[in-house]
Amino acid sequence: MSDTASQSDRLRVGVLGVGRIGSMHVDLVANQVEGADVSGVFDVYADGAAAVADRHDVTRFDSAEQLIASDQVDAVAICTSTDTHIDLLVAAAETGKAIFCEKPLSLDLSEVDRGLAAVEAAGVPLHVGFNRRFDAGHRSVRDAVANGVLGDLRQVSITSRDPAPPPISYINVSGGIFLDMTIHDFDMARYVAGSEVVEVYARGWVSVDQAIGDAGDYDTVTVILTHENGVVTTIDNCRQSAYGYDQRVEAFGSAGAAFSDNHREHYGRTLTAAGGSSALVPNFFLDRYIPSYVNQWNDFVAAVVGGQPTPVTGLDGRAPLLMGLAANKSVAENRPVAIAEVG
Amino acid sequence: MSDTASQSDRLRVGVLGVGRIGSMHVDLVANQVEGADVSGVFDVYADGAAAVADRHDVTRFDSAEQLIASDQVDAVAICTSTDTHIDLLVAAAETGKAIFCEKPLSLDLSEVDRGLAAVEAAGVPLHVGFNRRFDAGHRSVRDAVANGVLGDLRQVSITSRDPAPPPISYINVSGGIFLDMTIHDFDMARYVAGSEVVEVYARGWVSVDQAIGDAGDYDTVTVILTHENGVVTTIDNCRQSAYGYDQRVEAFGSAGAAFSDNHREHYGRTLTAAGGSSALVPNFFLDRYIPSYVNQWNDFVAAVVGGQPTPVTGLDGRAPLLMGLAANKSVAENRPVAIAEVG
Amino acid sequence: MSDTASQSDRLRVGVLGVGRIGSMHVDLVANQVEGADVSGVFDVYADGAAAVADRHDVTRFDSAEQLIASDQVDAVAICTSTDTHIDLLVAAAETGKAIFCEKPLSLDLSEVDRGLAAVEAAGVPLHVGFNRRFDAGHRSVRDAVANGVLGDLRQVSITSRDPAPPPISYINVSGGIFLDMTIHDFDMARYVAGSEVVEVYARGWVSVDQAIGDAGDYDTVTVILTHENGVVTTIDNCRQSAYGYDQRVEAFGSAGAAFSDNHREHYGRTLTAAGGSSALVPNFFLDRYIPSYVNQWNDFVAAVVGGQPTPVTGLDGRAPLLMGLAANKSVAENRPVAIAEVG
Amino acid sequence: MSDTASQSDRLRVGVLGVGRIGSMHVDLVANQVEGADVSGVFDVYADGAAAVADRHDVTRFDSAEQLIASDQVDAVAICTSTDTHIDLLVAAAETGKAIFCEKPLSLDLSEVDRGLAAVEAAGVPLHVGFNRRFDAGHRSVRDAVANGVLGDLRQVSITSRDPAPPPISYINVSGGIFLDMTIHDFDMARYVAGSEVVEVYARGWVSVDQAIGDAGDYDTVTVILTHENGVVTTIDNCRQSAYGYDQRVEAFGSAGAAFSDNHREHYGRTLTAAGGSSALVPNFFLDRYIPSYVNQWNDFVAAVVGGQPTPVTGLDGRAPLLMGLAANKSVAENRPVAIAEVG
Repeated sequence: MSDTASQSDRLRVGVLGVGRIGSMHVDLVANQVEGADVSGVFDVYADGAAAVADRHDVTRFDSAEQLIASDQVDAVAICTSTDTHIDLLVAAAETGKAIFCEKPLSLDLSEVDRGLAAVEAAGVPLHVGFNRRFDAGHRSVRDAVANGVLGDLRQVSITSRDPAPPPISYINVSGGIFLDMTIHDFDMARYVAGSEVVEVYARGWVSVDQAIGDAGDYDTVTVILTHENGVVTTIDNCRQSAYGYDQRVEAFGSAGAAFSDNHREHYGRTLTAAGGSSALVPNFFLDRYIPSYVNQWNDFVAAVVGGQPTPVTGLDGRAPLLMGLAANKSVAENRPVAIAEVG
Repeated sequence: MSDTASQSDRLRVGVLGVGRIGSMHVDLVANQVEGADVSGVFDVYADGAAAVADRHDVTRFDSAEQLIASDQVDAVAICTSTDTHIDLLVAAAETGKAIFCEKPLSLDLSEVDRGLAAVEAAGVPLHVGFNRRFDAGHRSVRDAVANGVLGDLRQVSITSRDPAPPPISYINVSGGIFLDMTIHDFDMARYVAGSEVVEVYARGWVSVDQAIGDAGDYDTVTVILTHENGVVTTIDNCRQSAYGYDQRVEAFGSAGAAFSDNHREHYGRTLTAAGGSSALVPNFFLDRYIPSYVNQWNDFVAAVVGGQPTPVTGLDGRAPLLMGLAANKSVAENRPVAIAEVG
Repeated sequence: MSDTASQSDRLRVGVLGVGRIGSMHVDLVANQVEGADVSGVFDVYADGAAAVADRHDVTRFDSAEQLIASDQVDAVAICTSTDTHIDLLVAAAETGKAIFCEKPLSLDLSEVDRGLAAVEAAGVPLHVGFNRRFDAGHRSVRDAVANGVLGDLRQVSITSRDPAPPPISYINVSGGIFLDMTIHDFDMARYVAGSEVVEVYARGWVSVDQAIGDAGDYDTVTVILTHENGVVTTIDNCRQSAYGYDQRVEAFGSAGAAFSDNHREHYGRTLTAAGGSSALVPNFFLDRYIPSYVNQWNDFVAAVVGGQPTPVTGLDGRAPLLMGLAANKSVAENRPVAIAEVG
Repeated sequence: MSDTASQSDRLRVGVLGVGRIGSMHVDLVANQVEGADVSGVFDVYADGAAAVADRHDVTRFDSAEQLIASDQVDAVAICTSTDTHIDLLVAAAETGKAIFCEKPLSLDLSEVDRGLAAVEAAGVPLHVGFNRRFDAGHRSVRDAVANGVLGDLRQVSITSRDPAPPPISYINVSGGIFLDMTIHDFDMARYVAGSEVVEVYARGWVSVDQAIGDAGDYDTVTVILTHENGVVTTIDNCRQSAYGYDQRVEAFGSAGAAFSDNHREHYGRTLTAAGGSSALVPNFFLDRYIPSYVNQWNDFVAAVVGGQPTPVTGLDGRAPLLMGLAANKSVAENRPVAIAEVG
């Protein structure tokens, strides 16, 4: 990072793309991340960028290139559409900037490899935004595995269901459910099990909206992953959940099990002659995961400022893409597919 | 106990009174208590006694005196109406039999003292049936106190609510809510806190059924107990609870808190757009407390056979009576009443 | 059923095999089932049979044939070793007796078909002992599906883990984990989803005890079932669980989800500076499932006495066997196997 | 409010006192409250005020008078030490400003009455900062009462325990535990029960730190409140709780009960051979109650902008002071004290 940042011990972050996720990152870095500031933003939609820049009194750059090149920017946060990630990542790497890139790196493995090669050549820090690793509940499951509390790990189970499907226009460019949605769970499986996945068996179908099927995608999937160390992970996903954003992880080992349960909107409940009733699961992903995004930024900033490896590396970004490609092939051919077949 | 029992290492129990609670004891001893058998029953209602005796193929005695005197009986379980307890207890003591007496010993302190004197003179084991001490959840709270897990105890909170009030005919002979219902919680307070109660402040009122008020009783009470060691216990009671038999205990100390929560009829639940829903609390006291009755019998039998003190002594039966008398006086005069004032 | 039973409206049950499960059935029918009595028992191990017969004061028959033929027996409960089930079932059917048969009917599909043919020819009631359907929590999940509370069902998830593996001598004759242990979950999947399974993908491995692997079996399995109606069920099984008998079911549909959670040994818990702590999951299958066995008997007795279909039919006994055979094939060939391939 | 604010439909808030609670209010209004902005701050500790003013780029006034008089300020938030509240409140009222005043209004009833008289004379909106009413869980309990879900209310139970006691220097000026800490629970009792309190019985003692006793205060109290409508509320307070900030409310009525349970730091948990373990209760009051402060601001702003009554009125600020005075008298004289005796 630049001398200026070193002098101040604060990381100056330039944010590329300030749509829903990008503007959230801007707000978090500006208001809740101790060691970092937003120093500028860019978006192809200039009005959106202007509003965000105005709200936080930061520079609105006229192009991604200008932001990347600016000596006010120590780290570039890439929050643009997926198909632009690698070009921006390569540009940022070549300028020597630390990089925070939203998931997925790309839908194209060769593109990912081009990006990772540029990062490696430049020797810059790269973090891929798998924020769920930083959720305190999910992390406690992984820690129970890593610290030996569960003994030898045997089975992992991940449930992830969105409150409602995105618009078809988004589905069309999403890369499909495995690369858009399940990719978080693929990452979680590697994170919790601490072992690479070697084989994928997936079932995908349409149970929410036929328009998703017509777009060539699935809205509901069940996946079995076999890890190198013999552990088996199951994943249940759905694009629609009536009771809110269902986010759970469990791990089972020779000495016990660990669970990360859903949150509730509040912890009030009643008991009447009709039984017990309690609150909904939070409906919006930010209500559940904002603290994980803050934790992620804090860890990223500490790693970059401290010259340590980033918490989620480029290889952590690459592996789930392979798993997604294998899952697509598995559904198409209704058979288990080895990772080696797709990568 | 008799030589015969010593030889067989099994305790032969004669049960006096086989109404609801007495016939439950017969069933439990016959079917679920390892070291004891029912050897005979008696009830002033001969048909009821005959049905129970027939069901378990045991002797139906023609009088309480015969049962008490029988050399088939090592221990006498007194499950008759409260006003007969002390006479039977004295008779059993004088015959040298071990005694299991349902709560309360009596509504009359001088009667209790007469009974305890007889027990002491005879040197026989006496156990008073405060079964809730043997509930695994409640016991875990007391153990957390006794084992020091909670540090120095500060506050105890007990909630006990019945699904529905008994008939007015029962209210009329019950001795009032404090001696009939709260007496269990008075015992629980002493058990959990491990310290005698020195002062009682109680509020009692009618919120369930005016007929209970017309009978000179309350159906809802809130009580504060001050223990000798400075701990303060609160008790909430009500004769009616729409959601089932509400039975909870909590204890708070310098190092933490312990809770005994309600059970549920089952552990199924749903989550829908309307929120979470779960099952009722069991509605019937036996659904919650049957295991506590079995544990109580096992501990009583082990104590008698092993020549050890019974788990709930005569003094444990006397103390809650004093607390109930103090509570009645406290409500009547709306002031805290020292136990020393009533005993 | 016989005229005698009709006259008395009580079902007289003869129990074949009084090992662990058979003697439990005897105790339940004798003590806790309202409309039935045990009228006799038989076991090839005569001393065991004598002890049980003595405990309940019922006839000990000298042979299975005598018990089946006896006019004291309205219904035959077959609780012997699996390889003897079908011969006894055929004999009981030919004698016109109602039949309660423990699971699995047989490890051999042709044997099952021989048995079902005999039952059909005789027109006698047959119930297969999948007791978990009668667990109140699991049943609440199935009811939430059947009553439409969950909308259109999409995914089912079943977790079943034993506290500890059986001895290798049992493993050797068990038919393998899928036919011995998972068979309960195969039944649960059909019960909850209300739809036949058409394809099975299974992974099986050894993570508990290599001796189980040496015996040609697995001790840990993960299974994906595809139902005729498109629903997908996942099953996680393990022969060893450090925290007790892990028994959970969940179902997810368009309108919500339903869960049957584990029980706890009690509902006491503590909160200290180290966090919260709570009790274990019950360690023994009877601690969890006794009420389900009682419910099963009550429903079976009501069906037989009332001339209604039994709650779990012969076809319900046959289908999970096919699923187990498909699962074995799936693991061996590491591919999804259609039920049509094995049956 | 001023014309300017009316024109912009945003409320401009000036904050008096920017210590721990005041600077929190500044941050919340600046970052998380939709319809309001901070327009200036004042603190007798100028450096503290400067830091806060700088952080949010707002005016630092040289005196409370200047802030109150400023035409940039529509509403005055009084977050100074308790003994200064009424003078500032009167000054703000006389200037026609809307007022948000932290609890307690004053420790002196005549002072409170002087303040409320000034507010009434000026006709300005006044809100007293009892934020816990705006906690979603606690509110759900009150709503269950208010909406009739619980039928006729009978008993309320409030538990409130701080993680650790404040310094003795704070204790010395706090007005004592009843006016400093229990005052929140006094407010909660009125809020949940929807009925004034007419009598108080309180016990107070020292179990945490003798220095608190030496300062003439208690660190642990148990209180019984009798409401005008016959409902009885119990309150358990302690200045120290090993497991975090214990904040619970429950209400019991003829048709059921409602509970507001503690939160957890996260919802991960484990099950091992040692039982279950789970996370701590949040240790810091802001971790639990930040959303309640945000809700409170939103409701206050909406009320002022919309010309509606504030959610917590001056009388809502006065009543708990009376309850605290009665509680002090009750402990001193060990008897129930009618509110009429102290007000």
